[in-house]
Amino acid sequence: MPQFAPLQNDTFLRALLRQPTEHTPVWLMRQAGRYLPEYRATRAKAGSFMGLATNPDYATEVTLQPLDRFPLDAAILFSDILTVPDAMGLGLYFVEGEGPKFERPLKTEADVLALRAPELGSLDYVFKAVTQIRTELNGRVPLIGFSGSPWTLACYMVEGQGSREFHTIKTMLYNRPDLMHHILAINAKAVAEYLNAQIDAGAQAVMVFDSWGGALADGAYQEFSLNYMQQVVSLLKRRRDGDPDSVNIPAIVFTKGGGQWIEQIADIGADAVGLDWTVNLAQARKLVGHKVGLQGNLDPAILFASPDQIRAEVHKVLDAYGKPTEGNGHVFNLGHGISQFTPPENVAAMVEAVHSYSKAQRAS
Amino acid sequence: MPQFAPLQNDTFLRALLRQPTEHTPVWLMRQAGRYLPEYRATRAKAGSFMGLATNPDYATEVTLQPLDRFPLDAAILFSDILTVPDAMGLGLYFVEGEGPKFERPLKTEADVLALRAPELGSLDYVFKAVTQIRTELNGRVPLIGFSGSPWTLACYMVEGQGSREFHTIKTMLYNRPDLMHHILAINAKAVAEYLNAQIDAGAQAVMVFDSWGGALADGAYQEFSLNYMQQVVSLLKRRRDGDPDSVNIPAIVFTKGGGQWIEQIADIGADAVGLDWTVNLAQARKLVGHKVGLQGNLDPAILFASPDQIRAEVHKVLDAYGKPTEGNGHVFNLGHGISQFTPPENVAAMVEAVHSYSKAQRAS
Repeated sequence: MPQFAPLQNDTFLRALLRQPTEHTPVWLMRQAGRYLPEYRATRAKAGSFMGLATNPDYATEVTLQPLDRFPLDAAILFSDILTVPDAMGLGLYFVEGEGPKFERPLKTEADVLALRAPELGSLDYVFKAVTQIRTELNGRVPLIGFSGSPWTLACYMVEGQGSREFHTIKTMLYNRPDLMHHILAINAKAVAEYLNAQIDAGAQAVMVFDSWGGALADGAYQEFSLNYMQQVVSLLKRRRDGDPDSVNIPAIVFTKGGGQWIEQIADIGADAVGLDWTVNLAQARKLVGHKVGLQGNLDPAILFASPDQIRAEVHKVLDAYGKPTEGNGHVFNLGHGISQFTPPENVAAMVEAVHSYSKAQRAS
Repeated sequence: MPQFAPLQNDTFLRALLRQPTEHTPVWLMRQAGRYLPEYRATRAKAGSFMGLATNPDYATEVTLQPLDRFPLDAAILFSDILTVPDAMGLGLYFVEGEGPKFERPLKTEADVLALRAPELGSLDYVFKAVTQIRTELNGRVPLIGFSGSPWTLACYMVEGQGSREFHTIKTMLYNRPDLMHHILAINAKAVAEYLNAQIDAGAQAVMVFDSWGGALADGAYQEFSLNYMQQVVSLLKRRRDGDPDSVNIPAIVFTKGGGQWIEQIADIGADAVGLDWTVNLAQARKLVGHKVGLQGNLDPAILFASPDQIRAEVHKVLDAYGKPTEGNGHVFNLGHGISQFTPPENVAAMVEAVHSYSKAQRAS
């Protein structure tokens, strides 16, 4: 069990746990990514996306890159949301310019019934990267581990790739809900074990990305996505084994396009709920009360605007949430991953604006 | 001014106007479309999508096709949401297997400032189709006219085609809101004139499709989409000139992905609000009270399931809305256009289930 340096900036963790902070912490989904020239250089050395993600040295290098540029309040493991089904034997691969795909999607009932949660050993490259990143972070900021949600993993596992309309998986969902639940129960167990192993390896918070929950109908969302995220959350460790300093490891859940279900999402036992930019943060804060912190929700497209305009839009998001009070917490983020076409200097303007304006807000 | 046969089934209009009905009326977005073999036959004769849309005989033929198969409660003009910017000179064209595109998108400030609302004469093929369809309907059911919303038209006009992230138009929106408002004001005026001309030609209800409003951030949605739909609605005629039987022509507005803004959408003066499948109809009905009727919201993917399953899901939607009472109204529809891969017999099962279950509901 590795030991790590004490944490110097725990603002992010305190905000998630609804404790007071001096400023609103900020990080960006996909902050280690293609918009950074240094990322593209490491990616070129690694040869492929999976070459990058499966090599702990490279994964550590790119995870730390955005922190060397911007005073972000958290690091997030560089990995893919689909490592778990890959370890189940489905054969994850990437085609340049397209999203992730699986060589062997679940096509038949026999495929579904043969599905097993993966041996965690086959995901060792992830846990090694977590430990190495946490070690090299040396206590600067907390490290976030993550996974795709059971439903989102299932979308790729059944469709074989991303989809606009999800015909294949929705046909299964409505015609063979028994098979759908069979997959989701296995995924929920696998995701929880995977996140717990990340926690043991050194992750100080975990996030579940439900990228495709928003494609589901009301009713189906609760039954086939939220339900299984709740199972994951209920199985998560709250502390790292054998580490007396590790307590209250917070969990964040994020359903893109799930703003209409925020009260139900806030009820599943997670510490914080991620929100996309369509949600009004003032209203969201009112709806969730003291149950959870909120994370979000700047439109990533705003980072294409001028620094002045970016500052104005950052202020709007912070004003919408309002000054955090006892029992509330806000983590600033985008409402979706940062675009590869974002000028890095615009990220600098955004981070600076979050820190300075949120400090001023607390003083007012 | 043509005169038309008296209407035999006004269930759809009464539901929109929150008057009592004997059953819940039903129609489908894109009901005249590729899932019907007879549509594909007419489309082949016409040679191209625009060949079909610009020929009133063909447009009439395909508009009536679904009504000959299913006892639907409304017809909708066969046309495209982008006819208005095409008439502005942007050059609408279609590439097989891709969405609509414009040859001359608005790329520069000069392009934007040169934009004018179109001469309605150049859209005469649409108004001729409306009159011919209404004549051939011979009073069976009401005819719906429609347009894209000012914001949705602008998305295509600026991006030049559909988009996943809307970088180009959002960059304009945040950096040059003045240009964005310039385009939207012209679009709003053009859309209102276009819908009013459809009303004069015989449309008995009109619908504004805001396909891309859900891509906007909270705040930006209200300023750049909802605001201009409100302008359109405020400019709409409530009756056809010179037709004493024409009163209270209802307007429906539909923002895909706009469920979180339903109370604000209900306030812009439209008679009904369309909802996608992510929205809980019981909650939506509570939020809008007696202000508007609701239209929706079955997930189109449900039409890939078995007839038994389709019936069960139709019942869920009708139960969610509940029995309409004085001052409420529900029009059954999908939450998005019907997929080209839908088996037509499943549509028959859906329509039958809506009619029979909603009659039973009223008797209970």
